[in-house]
Amino acid sequence: MARSALPGRGLETLIDALRALPGVGPRSAQRMAYHLMQHDRVGAEQLARALDGALEVVRHCARCNNFTETELCTLCRSPGRDPALLCVVETSADLSMVEQTLSYSGLYFVLMGRLSPLDGVGPRDIGLDRLLERATDGIVREVILATNFTNEGEATAHYIAEMLRARSIKASRIARGVPLGGELEFVDVGTISQAMLDRRGL
Amino acid sequence: MARSALPGRGLETLIDALRALPGVGPRSAQRMAYHLMQHDRVGAEQLARALDGALEVVRHCARCNNFTETELCTLCRSPGRDPALLCVVETSADLSMVEQTLSYSGLYFVLMGRLSPLDGVGPRDIGLDRLLERATDGIVREVILATNFTNEGEATAHYIAEMLRARSIKASRIARGVPLGGELEFVDVGTISQAMLDRRGL
Repeated sequence: MARSALPGRGLETLIDALRALPGVGPRSAQRMAYHLMQHDRVGAEQLARALDGALEVVRHCARCNNFTETELCTLCRSPGRDPALLCVVETSADLSMVEQTLSYSGLYFVLMGRLSPLDGVGPRDIGLDRLLERATDGIVREVILATNFTNEGEATAHYIAEMLRARSIKASRIARGVPLGGELEFVDVGTISQAMLDRRGL
Repeated sequence: MARSALPGRGLETLIDALRALPGVGPRSAQRMAYHLMQHDRVGAEQLARALDGALEVVRHCARCNNFTETELCTLCRSPGRDPALLCVVETSADLSMVEQTLSYSGLYFVLMGRLSPLDGVGPRDIGLDRLLERATDGIVREVILATNFTNEGEATAHYIAEMLRARSIKASRIARGVPLGGELEFVDVGTISQAMLDRRGL
């Protein structure tokens, strides 16, 4: 990067700030900044406002931990969902994928991560205390573990299963229709649908 | 994309706004938005401020058309550069690359694009009227065409060369050290340096 040839602090600051986006390195950030300043100032303005807007309104649902703009999210408030079923997913994107299958009518708990001791992510960091509280509320009859089939996702599922077994709560794991090593977000909806049907007791 | 399962307007607006960034599709935009809201709210805030800051201060140099925050950019104001040499590049990123070679001591003209009749980009859109005015100021003795070696970049170079020949101004093209079909921004500095040395008259 020719930092020396950069045409000023404002642009330099923008290029640095764009690197907060996942998967954006110095070169992409430079391209993005130049593109916005040259071809899409309206888009840049809208992005700044959208960031401010989201920062102001986006928070976590008090029940399922998913992103929401109200105390409880739309799904948790929906009377049509079966509160006896609780599906545990790693991220909001994963929840979206399960919803798209139209094969699940229960509720969710979003971990917003997965257990990862090497990165210092422990049970409390992904809200397992809140998940346990929820699972033992007397309404939930089955917890469906739909974490990814990666090493960390599997470890997280097993950890939660053990935790629930100690309280005699039924836990199941979505079937390994999802390819080994795969991540829910990138799998087709039919596969996820099959995996929901084939879930097995743990 | 499960728009239906999206957790609110604020997040939806942010995901849409992120698509203003080049190379960012619906899925990347969703990942980026979730990442910022979950893991990097400070980064999101900094990005919003950097966008506002850049929008306020970034404009085009009155002489070379590059991004700048002052009337004339640092390069155009530099007394150490040779005003008899004028290098024409497509973008700011290309200018940065040429500067990094340390093999060029003249000045620049940044087209901020290239001729592209199919996209409706004509001579005036890339400032060729201003380039001609500059080239005929009596100071410039040679115009070095360093547009990309793509079809559009080549066509742009030939168009400019014809325009300059009609006014008896010397035009040269950087040597085809740059691989055919390649773009300056993605080539190593040594190759660009060689191409500057091997420039040939047009």
